[in-house]
Amino acid sequence: MQIKLIDGGVVAPEGFFASGIATGIKPNDVNDFALVCSDDTAAAAGVFSGLNVRSNSTKVVMENIANGYANAIVVNSGNANACNGQQGVADAKHICSLVAEQLGCEADDVLFLSTGVMGKALPMDNLTASVETLVGNMSDSGNLDAIDAIMTCDTRRKEYAAEFKLQDETVRVGVMVKGSGIYYPLMGGITVIITTDVNISKALLQKSIETVVAKTFAKISVDGKLNAYEAVVALANGQADNSGVVAQDNAYDSFTNVLQYLCSNLCKDLVRDCESGKFVEVTVKNATTQEQALELANAIAGSNAFKEDLSEGICDVSSIVNAINGSNVEITDSMLDVFLGDVQILRAGSVADYEDEQVAEILSKNSVALTVVVSTGTCTDKVLASLY
Amino acid sequence: MQIKLIDGGVVAPEGFFASGIATGIKPNDVNDFALVCSDDTAAAAGVFSGLNVRSNSTKVVMENIANGYANAIVVNSGNANACNGQQGVADAKHICSLVAEQLGCEADDVLFLSTGVMGKALPMDNLTASVETLVGNMSDSGNLDAIDAIMTCDTRRKEYAAEFKLQDETVRVGVMVKGSGIYYPLMGGITVIITTDVNISKALLQKSIETVVAKTFAKISVDGKLNAYEAVVALANGQADNSGVVAQDNAYDSFTNVLQYLCSNLCKDLVRDCESGKFVEVTVKNATTQEQALELANAIAGSNAFKEDLSEGICDVSSIVNAINGSNVEITDSMLDVFLGDVQILRAGSVADYEDEQVAEILSKNSVALTVVVSTGTCTDKVLASLY
Repeated sequence: MQIKLIDGGVVAPEGFFASGIATGIKPNDVNDFALVCSDDTAAAAGVFSGLNVRSNSTKVVMENIANGYANAIVVNSGNANACNGQQGVADAKHICSLVAEQLGCEADDVLFLSTGVMGKALPMDNLTASVETLVGNMSDSGNLDAIDAIMTCDTRRKEYAAEFKLQDETVRVGVMVKGSGIYYPLMGGITVIITTDVNISKALLQKSIETVVAKTFAKISVDGKLNAYEAVVALANGQADNSGVVAQDNAYDSFTNVLQYLCSNLCKDLVRDCESGKFVEVTVKNATTQEQALELANAIAGSNAFKEDLSEGICDVSSIVNAINGSNVEITDSMLDVFLGDVQILRAGSVADYEDEQVAEILSKNSVALTVVVSTGTCTDKVLASLY
Repeated sequence: MQIKLIDGGVVAPEGFFASGIATGIKPNDVNDFALVCSDDTAAAAGVFSGLNVRSNSTKVVMENIANGYANAIVVNSGNANACNGQQGVADAKHICSLVAEQLGCEADDVLFLSTGVMGKALPMDNLTASVETLVGNMSDSGNLDAIDAIMTCDTRRKEYAAEFKLQDETVRVGVMVKGSGIYYPLMGGITVIITTDVNISKALLQKSIETVVAKTFAKISVDGKLNAYEAVVALANGQADNSGVVAQDNAYDSFTNVLQYLCSNLCKDLVRDCESGKFVEVTVKNATTQEQALELANAIAGSNAFKEDLSEGICDVSSIVNAINGSNVEITDSMLDVFLGDVQILRAGSVADYEDEQVAEILSKNSVALTVVVSTGTCTDKVLASLY
C-alpha cells in the first residue's frame, strides 16, 4: 500500500478545521485553548487509559463520546481540571455548552479535554470569554495554532497527515499529540487527536484506535510505568468517497495500518522530545506469553539505572540484569541473550566478548535498540523510553 | 521488653568472631574479604529474594544452607560472581573448601557471598592467597574490619547489636548490612548478616528471619522495585543459657521483635546512605488487601517524579496522583486522602487548604512521612525510599 505523507495535520482530511488562541492561562501570550472541528457530525471514538484519578474534563468526554458521535474536540492547556472537586465536572460541561452554542451543535457533541497542573479550579473567566474567538478563528490551516495550544512541556510540534487509497478512493488521516519530556522529572501526560475523512462505522473506528493505541501510545515508558496517555480521541466525518468500512476486511486493515504508522511516528517524536533527544527501544523476544514479553521490556525500559548507563555511553550488564530481576517473570540466567544493536552483550547469561568501542559507537546514535531473547516461548513485545 | 543496644555488631553474641582484609580486588588497599564465624556449628537460616539471575556464590550458599547448619559466612566485595558462566559456581565451591580447611569444618558449612560488579570471573588468585590470613585474623573485635570488607557504594558502616532477656537469661543479637545509594543511579544490592547466641531451632530461626525480612528489607524501594536484597543469612549458635526457642511462643515473639527492631534500624540507615541523607516513608492505610496497600505504597515510593519533587521541597499533587494512576489498584479520586506529615494535601480527592510554608518545614527534615488513606478496607503497608 502506498502512503503519502502530506501537510496539514488534523486539518488535512476533508471538512476539518482548527484554531488555537491564548486566553491567559499560560503566561506570555502563549496559546492555551484549541479547537479541532468537523463541519458535519462525525463518528467519534476514544481510548482512555485506566487511570484511577482522572481529569474532570475527561470524565465528561467519556460521557459525551458514549453515543459514538461528536462534532468538535476542544482542549485547554495549563490546567488539568483534576483533583478540584465536583465543580470541575460542572465547569467542563459549561465549556461544552458554550462551544456547542457557537458551533450550532449539541453540548454532548463537544469533547473537551484539559491538560496541565492538577488541583486548581479551571480558570473559567479566561475560557468563557474566549470561546467566541476560538470558534471564530477556526480555519483549514489552523492546525499549528491548535498544536501550540495543547502543548505543556513540549519543545516541538508533533503532527502527521497521510493520504492513501481506500476502496479505490483517496482518503486522508491526520494526527497530533501533546506530551514530552516523557521521562523523569519533566514528564507530561499524552493527549492524542485523530481526524479522518474516511467513511467508517463508529464501531470499527473505535476498534481501530483501540488496536493502534495498544501497540503505540500504551508502549511508552514514563517514570517506569506504561499507559501514560490521558485520552486518545478520533473523529471520522466520512467526507471521502470510499464506499464505507463496515467490516473487519482489507479496507479496515489498511486504515488501521496507516493509523498505526502515523501513531508510531508520533511515539518516536514523543520519546525524542527530551533533553537529550535520544531514546531506547527495548524489544523482548521469545517470551512465554505476551504479558511476560511486555513486562520484561517495561522492566528494562523503566529502569533509571539502565537508562542512565546508556545516556553515559555505557552498557552495563548489572543494570540490565537488575532490571530483569525486578520483574515478576521467571527466567534463569542461562536462557538470557542480550543484544545492543547487533552487538551481543550476554550469551546464555554470561558476558559475551565485545569491544567497548562497539558499544560507544551504537550509543552515540539518537536511537538505540536493546534486544533481549529469553528463549522460553514465541512472544515478542517492545517498549520505548527517553534517555536522559 | 527491655532492649539494650550494645557495641560489637555481629561479634557481640557469645562465640562469634570476625575479620576483614584487603586482597586487592578493590583498589587502594581497601578491605574486600570478610569472615563472620561461630566457634561452634550454628543453626543457619537464609532468605534470598526471588531473583532470576543470581550470583553464582549465592547459588552455592542456597545449597550449603539447605541442611540448616553452618559455621561461617564469608563475603567478598568488588565482584558479584554473576553472569560469568559455570566457572563461577566452581570458584565459589573452591573458596568454601579453602575456608573450611582453615576452620576445620565441612565445606558445605561455609556460606560464601559475593557482591560487586557482574560479568567478570571471580579474582581467584586474590582470594585463595588470602584465605589463611582471613581466618588467622579473626577476633572478637573484628566486626568493623568485616563491615568495611563487605561495603560497595556504602559511605558509612551499618551495624547494630542488642542484649535482652529471653527465658530469664541474657542473650544477644548482632546485625550488619551492606547496601547504599538505594536510589538511582548509585544503587547497590543489599546483603545482611545476622548472628545470635540465642538457643533456637533452625526451623524457627528460618521462620523468624523470613517474617522480619518481609517487613523490613523487602519494603525498600530501589529504582522503583522492591526486594532488592540478594541474601539475608543468619547463624544462631545457642551459646546463651536460654532454655531454647522451640515453639511459636512468647520467647519466639520476643526474639523476632528484637530482630525486627534491629533490621528496621538497618533499613533506615540503608535509605539514609544516599547523597542527600534523606528518605521518605510512604504508608498506605485502609486498602482492600495487603497486596494493594503494598502496591500503592511502592508505586508512590518508586516514582522519580514524586521523589524529585520532595527533594526540591515541593509536594505536588500531580506527581502523587500520577504515581497512584501508575499502579493497578482501582480507586476513585473521591476515596483519596493524602497527608504529608500531619498536613493534609488531598481531601476526598480534592486539593486541601494548606500553606506552602507548612510543606517546606516538613520537607526540611531528614525523614519525611507521606500517608495515603484510600478508605476501601482495613489493610496498611509502608515502603521506604531514599530522596535525591
